[in-house]
Amino acid sequence: MKPSDFDSLATYMSAVGSAARQAATETARADTAAKNLALTTMAAAIRRQAAALLEANARDVEAARAKQLDAAFIDRLTLKPSTVETMAEGLSQMAALPDPVGTITDLTPRPSGIQVGKMRVPLGVIGIVYEARPNVTADAAGLCLKAGNAVILRGGSEALRSNLAIAVCVHEGLRAAGLPETAVQMVATPDREAVGHLIRDEAHVDVIVPRGGKSLIERIMHEARVPVIKHLDGVCHVYLDADADPGKAVRIADNAKTQRYAPCNTMETLLVHQAVAATLLPPLCAIYRDKGVELRGCARARAVVPAMLEAAEEDWHTEYLAPILAVRVVDSFDQAIDHIARYGSQHTDAIVTENHTAAMRFLREVDSSSVLVNASTRFSDGFEYGLGAEIGISTNKLHARGPVGLEGLTTQKWIVLGGNQIRGQIRT
Amino acid sequence: MKPSDFDSLATYMSAVGSAARQAATETARADTAAKNLALTTMAAAIRRQAAALLEANARDVEAARAKQLDAAFIDRLTLKPSTVETMAEGLSQMAALPDPVGTITDLTPRPSGIQVGKMRVPLGVIGIVYEARPNVTADAAGLCLKAGNAVILRGGSEALRSNLAIAVCVHEGLRAAGLPETAVQMVATPDREAVGHLIRDEAHVDVIVPRGGKSLIERIMHEARVPVIKHLDGVCHVYLDADADPGKAVRIADNAKTQRYAPCNTMETLLVHQAVAATLLPPLCAIYRDKGVELRGCARARAVVPAMLEAAEEDWHTEYLAPILAVRVVDSFDQAIDHIARYGSQHTDAIVTENHTAAMRFLREVDSSSVLVNASTRFSDGFEYGLGAEIGISTNKLHARGPVGLEGLTTQKWIVLGGNQIRGQIRT
Repeated sequence: MKPSDFDSLATYMSAVGSAARQAATETARADTAAKNLALTTMAAAIRRQAAALLEANARDVEAARAKQLDAAFIDRLTLKPSTVETMAEGLSQMAALPDPVGTITDLTPRPSGIQVGKMRVPLGVIGIVYEARPNVTADAAGLCLKAGNAVILRGGSEALRSNLAIAVCVHEGLRAAGLPETAVQMVATPDREAVGHLIRDEAHVDVIVPRGGKSLIERIMHEARVPVIKHLDGVCHVYLDADADPGKAVRIADNAKTQRYAPCNTMETLLVHQAVAATLLPPLCAIYRDKGVELRGCARARAVVPAMLEAAEEDWHTEYLAPILAVRVVDSFDQAIDHIARYGSQHTDAIVTENHTAAMRFLREVDSSSVLVNASTRFSDGFEYGLGAEIGISTNKLHARGPVGLEGLTTQKWIVLGGNQIRGQIRT
Repeated sequence: MKPSDFDSLATYMSAVGSAARQAATETARADTAAKNLALTTMAAAIRRQAAALLEANARDVEAARAKQLDAAFIDRLTLKPSTVETMAEGLSQMAALPDPVGTITDLTPRPSGIQVGKMRVPLGVIGIVYEARPNVTADAAGLCLKAGNAVILRGGSEALRSNLAIAVCVHEGLRAAGLPETAVQMVATPDREAVGHLIRDEAHVDVIVPRGGKSLIERIMHEARVPVIKHLDGVCHVYLDADADPGKAVRIADNAKTQRYAPCNTMETLLVHQAVAATLLPPLCAIYRDKGVELRGCARARAVVPAMLEAAEEDWHTEYLAPILAVRVVDSFDQAIDHIARYGSQHTDAIVTENHTAAMRFLREVDSSSVLVNASTRFSDGFEYGLGAEIGISTNKLHARGPVGLEGLTTQKWIVLGGNQIRGQIRT
């Protein structure tokens, strides 16, 4: 299906949606062996065609350089032989993951004689909107397919040549398994309005998963009519409680900030109980200073570590994604909880404490997609949680919350196994 | 909080939302005993104040009569002593249901040493938009509270006096349990624009549950910015397979249509495999005729039962909610599946068959919130499924699908129990 075969972008996108909806009935029906064969064939094709992928990518990179796009952009766009191998390896690993589709749970007899349970089934058609990162193409196609869905991929237009080369490998896998190529479609136009059509196509698309920066996600949130699985910010906190073990506190608060600066699960604000601020902040801040982390503190934190800059109100709201950390001393456990409720992004928050009651209250009362006790916020991802792979992290409260893996790409329906039961009693 | 205390409807609704958000932190924290005490106190207050409730309701009914609203409307609006008792009994039963909040599941050790699991927690703030049916007020307030949520109730303005009288009882229960009265708020204005503010208040409201007719739900679907748990249509099918047991086929197809005509889980289209049409349709249609059901059939159905009217294309799309049934003879199992995919509303569909493969394929391939084998579609509700109570039925694919009970009014977050773990390996 090519955009040039259609008289407008709207009719092209509608045809893509309609073909995906049709393909979704076949992917939903496909058995595990067929889906796994598709995935392993895709992996083999990517390995075999590595040279062609790298060549297509080199042309994308050249065009991006000519447009003077920045170094970080070029870095995300560039495929190396090792990234190609990682794509192939990712697809092979998906083949090894358990298939969630068809699982029946909670089958329970009812007084009427019927048995009621739930069956896990694919969502249907997934739209993935992402930036110019070609490795996402194979990853997203594989995960959506394993969960029994058809997928429409809309990657950044600067990666279009790379993505189309990857799509050749993906389609080879689908054909090998007797599945329609329309189960994985690339939107083959650089026109940005294509995204607008996709995210409003309630008739053909069941859910949109945006992957990318904040401006992309904000645009999609505001324009979408289709439900969106997403997170916007990761303003993550570590709270060092009055009863924190000092060794654990320093080790976890160091790792949560400095292991990597860019991920969404990196700590952006450190909260410290007043009773332990004088003991914990000096050794911790010495570590941060040695690692080049800029500190922005409240007045009480600066009284303990005067070298800190003064934090402004907006620091508490900010996801730095950089070696910068906001530090606040709180009066009490309750003030820590209130701070997180007010300034947090409901992504990932951790407490360090030896006190059981504080740990249990923190787990229950902090309304975030992941809440941790005595562990680094950096653990909040699908691999570390054992999902095998993840399509993203969600701060939605409905459906998929936190790291989203295969299960988040499926839903459950009620099933009833009867033996000639009819309703008798009349209810209103 | 009264609308007259505010300078505009927008500021009033925003204050209601903000108070609900605040109250939700307390209802989320409330233990099971407190919530149950609130529910049983509400039930006792409703029984004690039955006379006052009936009197307030009589004034609503009188005003509705003066406005010449129709008989069905007046019927839904009118409280009888028995409906008041049913409201109280419903609240008592909710107190007896297991509390979903705080349940921890799937706690599993990971290679890193952390333990990862899920904790069930309230959604937060629920908005319920409904028509002039005062019994919904107590029901919705009780269910939302038991699931740990704050709720904003916006009932039809013709029932405002009744609803405010019920709210007095609900608030007595909240006070008795030490919970804020703002945990259950009635929107105390007949201004229809209040609904518009409520369903766009993403900052304060986590989910909207509309209960009512199709025009109400359509309006909310189109205007809402907050996620909506809803179903629009219940175009439910019974498919009598080639391998249907004739006795079961007649009994189930009779019950699915005629036990009650108005519910959303009543069959609206009967599909019959061509191999059994000549045997099954005559006895079944005789029953429908005796019960006064108008039949509208395809050409092949009319060849077997000539007394049927001719079905038009739009009949296959129609939720009659009345003693009318569309009847179609299909060539094959696959054509039945295709018909349901094309014309159905993904609500509830049943197959009658003795064939195991057909039963299993129907369960897996029919993409509806409830799929039944050898049982009447009329079983598709929260009481029959063992949920104890339901706030509605959802045809959404995300989050809550099918009958929605206490669990559908909660969500899960990830919890991590660590012992000083930090992230080591660097991933991209």
